[in-house]
Amino acid sequence: MFARFLAQLDFVLTCDRLKTALRTTRLHDGSRLENSAEHSWHLALLALTLAEYAPTGTDVGRVVRLLLMHDLVEIGAGDLSFDAPAEAQAAQQEAEARAAAELFGLLPTDQAAEFLGLWQEFEARQTTEVRFARALDALQPMLLTWGPGAQGCAASHPELTHLRVLGLKEKHLREFPELWAAAQGVMAQAQARGVLQP
Amino acid sequence: MFARFLAQLDFVLTCDRLKTALRTTRLHDGSRLENSAEHSWHLALLALTLAEYAPTGTDVGRVVRLLLMHDLVEIGAGDLSFDAPAEAQAAQQEAEARAAAELFGLLPTDQAAEFLGLWQEFEARQTTEVRFARALDALQPMLLTWGPGAQGCAASHPELTHLRVLGLKEKHLREFPELWAAAQGVMAQAQARGVLQP
Ligand SMILES: [Ca+2]
Repeated sequence: MFARFLAQLDFVLTCDRLKTALRTTRLHDGSRLENSAEHSWHLALLALTLAEYAPTGTDVGRVVRLLLMHDLVEIGAGDLSFDAPAEAQAAQQEAEARAAAELFGLLPTDQAAEFLGLWQEFEARQTTEVRFARALDALQPMLLTWGPGAQGCAASHPELTHLRVLGLKEKHLREFPELWAAAQGVMAQAQARGVLQP
Repeated sequence: MFARFLAQLDFVLTCDRLKTALRTTRLHDGSRLENSAEHSWHLALLALTLAEYAPTGTDVGRVVRLLLMHDLVEIGAGDLSFDAPAEAQAAQQEAEARAAAELFGLLPTDQAAEFLGLWQEFEARQTTEVRFARALDALQPMLLTWGPGAQGCAASHPELTHLRVLGLKEKHLREFPELWAAAQGVMAQAQARGVLQP
């Protein structure tokens, strides 16, 4: 049993490196870039708080599990901005598949299969749980950057206008009409406050 | 509905401040102190990875929810080291109860009651789910500090000897015999590696 525990320990200590994987989004107070571990925590908390905007019957516990794991492959493969070109996104997909096999391969075989299955479910974008998880993943940086009290990112990312952000986010959010309406409301307020260019 | 969403948004953006609440534990690579948001993520991941060491029938989804929320009150009340004196711990409990009422009070009434209930369950230390969550909360900093590859903390915390750490942790872990045995195995290896004084 100790050998099995040591394999699980190798996995959780390797996962610790997600805390040093930086994203392109800043914290709500603007003080520093967000890392992918605290981002994953925040998404799980969003899932619990905004669960009512998922379709009836959505397994929110599964949404949380998917969100806790979905960024782990960045440990081997790094992160990409949400507006990266298609070529970079394709290369990233291959790197992430290799990273997933390596990382989840640290676990005992039965668990490796279970965790890899969750990650593959996330990649496949089929289930309602994954689509809702991905909607929250699209929404959270909008809230940090343009939500009440946030200062926007006009200096570092002048290309992210109101129109462009909504264009990039719509495909993730429109399936959840209340969430999409709320996101649009937040962005309209940000433009009215002058922290987002039309 | 937008008013309801704005209350939920106020809550999740206030929760963002947990990312700047620093703990006394360093990351596994020793590079910096851990913050309580990424710590909560790591605990939730431990719950999924080490679920087999919880008693049969334990609701692991509930363990995860409890762990995602358990440190939120630090936003108003700060954190305390696990070996703080009893007086400091009593004052801390009062500060946390006030912080909980304030933080969860940002949410719409129905959700405020639900989330406050989860936090109160965590405080009451009654359910198996809470006791398992607390065991993981006791275990995780041991793994970061003395697990394979970790360097211990003899320079910053010379008082944390092998004997003292086990003495402080036993009450949280002994109820889960496999977890407690594994923790003791990790600590014995740390002493053998010379990163932990007897
Ligand atoms: Ca804690």
